[in-house]
Amino acid sequence: MNFRSDNCAGAHDLVCESMTKNAGGFAASYGASDLDRRVEEKFNELFGREVAVFFVGTGTAANSLAMTAVNRPGGVVFCHPQAHLAEDECGAPEYFTGGARLCGVDGPLGRIDIERLQRAIDGYPADFVHMGQPMAVSITQSTEIGTLYSLDQIAAISAVCRRNGIPLHLDGARFANALVSLDVSPARMTLEQGVDIISFGGTKNGCWCAEALVFLDIDLARDMPFLRKRAAQLFSKSRFIAAQFDAYFEKDLWLELARHSNAMAARLATGLEASGNCRLAWRPEANEVFPFIRRGTVDKLMKSGGEFHEWPVPSSFAGEVGEDEVLCRLVTSFATTEHDVDRFCEIAG
Amino acid sequence: MNFRSDNCAGAHDLVCESMTKNAGGFAASYGASDLDRRVEEKFNELFGREVAVFFVGTGTAANSLAMTAVNRPGGVVFCHPQAHLAEDECGAPEYFTGGARLCGVDGPLGRIDIERLQRAIDGYPADFVHMGQPMAVSITQSTEIGTLYSLDQIAAISAVCRRNGIPLHLDGARFANALVSLDVSPARMTLEQGVDIISFGGTKNGCWCAEALVFLDIDLARDMPFLRKRAAQLFSKSRFIAAQFDAYFEKDLWLELARHSNAMAARLATGLEASGNCRLAWRPEANEVFPFIRRGTVDKLMKSGGEFHEWPVPSSFAGEVGEDEVLCRLVTSFATTEHDVDRFCEIAG
Amino acid sequence: MNFRSDNCAGAHDLVCESMTKNAGGFAASYGASDLDRRVEEKFNELFGREVAVFFVGTGTAANSLAMTAVNRPGGVVFCHPQAHLAEDECGAPEYFTGGARLCGVDGPLGRIDIERLQRAIDGYPADFVHMGQPMAVSITQSTEIGTLYSLDQIAAISAVCRRNGIPLHLDGARFANALVSLDVSPARMTLEQGVDIISFGGTKNGCWCAEALVFLDIDLARDMPFLRKRAAQLFSKSRFIAAQFDAYFEKDLWLELARHSNAMAARLATGLEASGNCRLAWRPEANEVFPFIRRGTVDKLMKSGGEFHEWPVPSSFAGEVGEDEVLCRLVTSFATTEHDVDRFCEIAG
Amino acid sequence: MNFRSDNCAGAHDLVCESMTKNAGGFAASYGASDLDRRVEEKFNELFGREVAVFFVGTGTAANSLAMTAVNRPGGVVFCHPQAHLAEDECGAPEYFTGGARLCGVDGPLGRIDIERLQRAIDGYPADFVHMGQPMAVSITQSTEIGTLYSLDQIAAISAVCRRNGIPLHLDGARFANALVSLDVSPARMTLEQGVDIISFGGTKNGCWCAEALVFLDIDLARDMPFLRKRAAQLFSKSRFIAAQFDAYFEKDLWLELARHSNAMAARLATGLEASGNCRLAWRPEANEVFPFIRRGTVDKLMKSGGEFHEWPVPSSFAGEVGEDEVLCRLVTSFATTEHDVDRFCEIAG
Repeated sequence: MNFRSDNCAGAHDLVCESMTKNAGGFAASYGASDLDRRVEEKFNELFGREVAVFFVGTGTAANSLAMTAVNRPGGVVFCHPQAHLAEDECGAPEYFTGGARLCGVDGPLGRIDIERLQRAIDGYPADFVHMGQPMAVSITQSTEIGTLYSLDQIAAISAVCRRNGIPLHLDGARFANALVSLDVSPARMTLEQGVDIISFGGTKNGCWCAEALVFLDIDLARDMPFLRKRAAQLFSKSRFIAAQFDAYFEKDLWLELARHSNAMAARLATGLEASGNCRLAWRPEANEVFPFIRRGTVDKLMKSGGEFHEWPVPSSFAGEVGEDEVLCRLVTSFATTEHDVDRFCEIAG
Repeated sequence: MNFRSDNCAGAHDLVCESMTKNAGGFAASYGASDLDRRVEEKFNELFGREVAVFFVGTGTAANSLAMTAVNRPGGVVFCHPQAHLAEDECGAPEYFTGGARLCGVDGPLGRIDIERLQRAIDGYPADFVHMGQPMAVSITQSTEIGTLYSLDQIAAISAVCRRNGIPLHLDGARFANALVSLDVSPARMTLEQGVDIISFGGTKNGCWCAEALVFLDIDLARDMPFLRKRAAQLFSKSRFIAAQFDAYFEKDLWLELARHSNAMAARLATGLEASGNCRLAWRPEANEVFPFIRRGTVDKLMKSGGEFHEWPVPSSFAGEVGEDEVLCRLVTSFATTEHDVDRFCEIAG
Repeated sequence: MNFRSDNCAGAHDLVCESMTKNAGGFAASYGASDLDRRVEEKFNELFGREVAVFFVGTGTAANSLAMTAVNRPGGVVFCHPQAHLAEDECGAPEYFTGGARLCGVDGPLGRIDIERLQRAIDGYPADFVHMGQPMAVSITQSTEIGTLYSLDQIAAISAVCRRNGIPLHLDGARFANALVSLDVSPARMTLEQGVDIISFGGTKNGCWCAEALVFLDIDLARDMPFLRKRAAQLFSKSRFIAAQFDAYFEKDLWLELARHSNAMAARLATGLEASGNCRLAWRPEANEVFPFIRRGTVDKLMKSGGEFHEWPVPSSFAGEVGEDEVLCRLVTSFATTEHDVDRFCEIAG
Repeated sequence: MNFRSDNCAGAHDLVCESMTKNAGGFAASYGASDLDRRVEEKFNELFGREVAVFFVGTGTAANSLAMTAVNRPGGVVFCHPQAHLAEDECGAPEYFTGGARLCGVDGPLGRIDIERLQRAIDGYPADFVHMGQPMAVSITQSTEIGTLYSLDQIAAISAVCRRNGIPLHLDGARFANALVSLDVSPARMTLEQGVDIISFGGTKNGCWCAEALVFLDIDLARDMPFLRKRAAQLFSKSRFIAAQFDAYFEKDLWLELARHSNAMAARLATGLEASGNCRLAWRPEANEVFPFIRRGTVDKLMKSGGEFHEWPVPSSFAGEVGEDEVLCRLVTSFATTEHDVDRFCEIAG
């Protein structure tokens, strides 16, 4: 009953199979193989236009290189305070950019508040060298707390970006989970709403290690071949990332895995609510569930083999949390089984 | 007949098998899984002492992080002008360190000349802030041109490092090829000769993507957990690297693969010399062969499916190269077949 | 009637005189002249112990190099959101450190709140590589809004630093103004309260360009000669900075200038309060006055040659500010005259 | 008899006077004062077109920021191995650019050899990410060893830059000395030969601290206001640099000082040659003299109060240097007197 994170899961059989299948023979290295090219072509199809795709090894690398591609001296990136960029990358975005700053823009339910966003940007007036200058907005979809931006919300944030002359980056570590939840195409969720750059994650959804930096605005990718290589993210046997994506996209495996993962989260939410010992902090929209669980129940679950993180209570809940209530984070994945979910809920009951 | 590079080969069956075998179930992420721990333990056994091991994704990452671990303001790394660090990493060592400098120290046959090394270091007098300060020496074993440092040569370079208070790094992208050629233990080739840090490469010798940064002097590794994470080289599903190394070390697979690779290089060298249309620029000591081949023969080989790089002629050969002679680099790997070698030599003949 | 900033003033006569007096003849460059040494010795006397002093050209350089001296991978500096470091240096601290992060810790009246400070530090648990790690606390004395930390408050913040194993930096761009206001010695305000590093500013208080980075804990200064030179802050004719400090300290000129400056601020505050059209947002403790002034009065003042900045109203004043009230910042300096102050107050009346 | 360096001299009387004259009153800070504007206008006149001028504090800052302005990922700067950039800045260019590389291009008499330059650039083929990419050529005028590039030589190097799509930077720490020696206008020496960016030095020629980064191609200066501020090189009381330049340019003081300095070097060269105990390593073309002096004479000179540096003998002199000959560097300045020169030569005789 491992709900610690979707990266505690391993890799899907078909992904493994594809790697093994492509392990033989000789191929051009450093991303120049036929397989690399073919998978890049798949990304074009996915977005319905020519995009610029760069495979990298980790989500942190994708995010940090995205920021490097749009870097400015004294540059400031606006993101949610809980963004992976801000909370889970040990300062990699700052390091890769040689010192860009992350400016937290809070908002309810893991989403940047649009009025606060404009106010935060206004804090950096044009040509005022003392403060620095805006360089990008980054949103996470699905968010770090399992919620979603609606298409309209993305479009509204993009409109702020346009007005202020800065690009919009989308951290899609859980891109597929968002996509199937919104039930739209990749282009509809991003391109059509004005997203410029995507950290397109496969790792959390059934790959070993398959991340892609996708530039919908290919002009922004001009320096990327050098930026990626300089950041030690150009893999000599790049085809092994391509091989994972190849299986991942084949017959929409990625969407199927994400649907399963989301369904498990929904099942878990329902089951926990029914147990009487839990209440949802907010409704899950992808593959993460955040319930308040009674301390005694938490202990029982952990003792019975349940694995999950306790989570800091957002300040917006002040005064509304019982003394023995613990906020928990439960993450489901392609590998989560109904059996584990049901047993977990049963123990919680 | 692909002799372009050992990274044009794929992955060995047993390595693939191990990845597949370890793909199921849940495991702690970010290097904390049992498998990760077990493989780290293997490294301890390999070197006969407790070492500090950090898995990373590319050789460039290993080298650059090694330099970051020993970084100093105004720091200067002394390496051969043909070092991978200097010629093939797009400035990653300079980037990761925030501006350390590589100082080329030439020497015959891909090896740093020891007297030039001391002279180069002397160019940076202690406490003279204008020039900067020495921070490390880096050697490659086997070298970029398929030769080896003898144990005595490594020890002599280490002695220079000791005298000047700087650590010795060994770029072991082809560590195994050197080891089996010298027929010594890992500890004997490194620890006992005074090496402090190793970029331990598995990728070129039959893995997909398995590199480890090994600190024999574990004090130097103090900051590494943060340095690695900040550099986007901490893999969430780290066990997929561990799984590769697990198979790699099992029953000395790695040594067997390297022996095969070296044997293919020797066979190729012998075959080419016998052909009458080639002469060796220098004797191969690992898995790279550098012959002068007549232009007509080069064309014939390429037309017949031979793949390899033409190579710049070192200035030390000035006046000794025939007008129609082309210096070529041929790299063998675990995947090279006798059949391909023999056919290549036959065409050359 | 220029109250825009203390750096709109020029240089004191005695400072100019000293530069001219030391302009002739030859002297050792790069900080090795007799005058440099003598002024360094003065700093030792000032703090009653051997300190490590490094002249630099700007306050931003002093602050940023202080952070570089205590830098860690994934490092986080805790400072007030209004700190000069955070608001006025275009990301220089982040740039110089290669990506350290500033974490704003709010608190009333320009001072870091000590409980929030500990909470903020707790957000970066030891050895948790994902978040990064604490590396320093930086306070400004006098603060950016003209208030002061009491000695006890400094000691309390230092105690938090000690507990968490990080150094305490003091941005003393207005060091002298704080000192004469508290009426204590330099050592008492810093060393005895547990400050480790000081950005010691002379520029705002009557010099052209005289800043010093002072390490009370000289162990932290080990790399500074190289750090300063690498940051282009080692001046070839360093004696011109020394010459300024020489006059600055002679017969306590610096304290006299600061006393004058503070007295002008007090006079301004009293005069404005008496005018009936202004109220002080908070009581000035050094050389900056923040009054709410009626819009009409602001216009009249500006039309009459008054120069000063309108200032954003802190959120803590929400609901307490009249519709026609404007928060203003008025800064006095060594060059401010009673005449200008009185005339300004008269116009405001 | 101080010939150690032109930065051992102080400041010219008129420069001091100008600083003192401009010390009073209030003025806009951070480069926005009338004086700043007026001096910027002088630079426009000097070059006969609108240029972009940025005052900075040190020559190292000017050079390093010039490189930052033209920075590229994996970028490589081509300069002479003895360039100040490479030998005297503690890696500041690498640090400011976040890791650009300096590639030494040797050539006789302190000048980059043009054929070697093209060959060096050819070592970085377009779009070949492994090596990095060319980003600039930097030449020093007058060179670090007191020689000059002729106008044709500058034009030829610029032509190489144009062909390879990279800008040409000129380190003009001794700009005036070169100018009066060639007896041409600033525009003729730079703009008309294809120079794009100049580190325009005043410090070595009679200022305290007056350096300007001048962009003849103002498009390259787009990011400079932020780059300079971020690098801690925007001075709050910027007018003190402007005041120095104001006096420096007034009635061509700068050219007069440089002429004096060069004349002193010529007199020194002649006098030393006549002494019989010295021979010139090469003919001085600006304000630096490099004689071989007999060891006994060196000792006598030093004992008698002569101050100067011994200098490493270039490899091109191998076999041509007597056992008791010492290569020395003697630098003259605006402050050097005929009396000192003659006495020095007399002692040498």
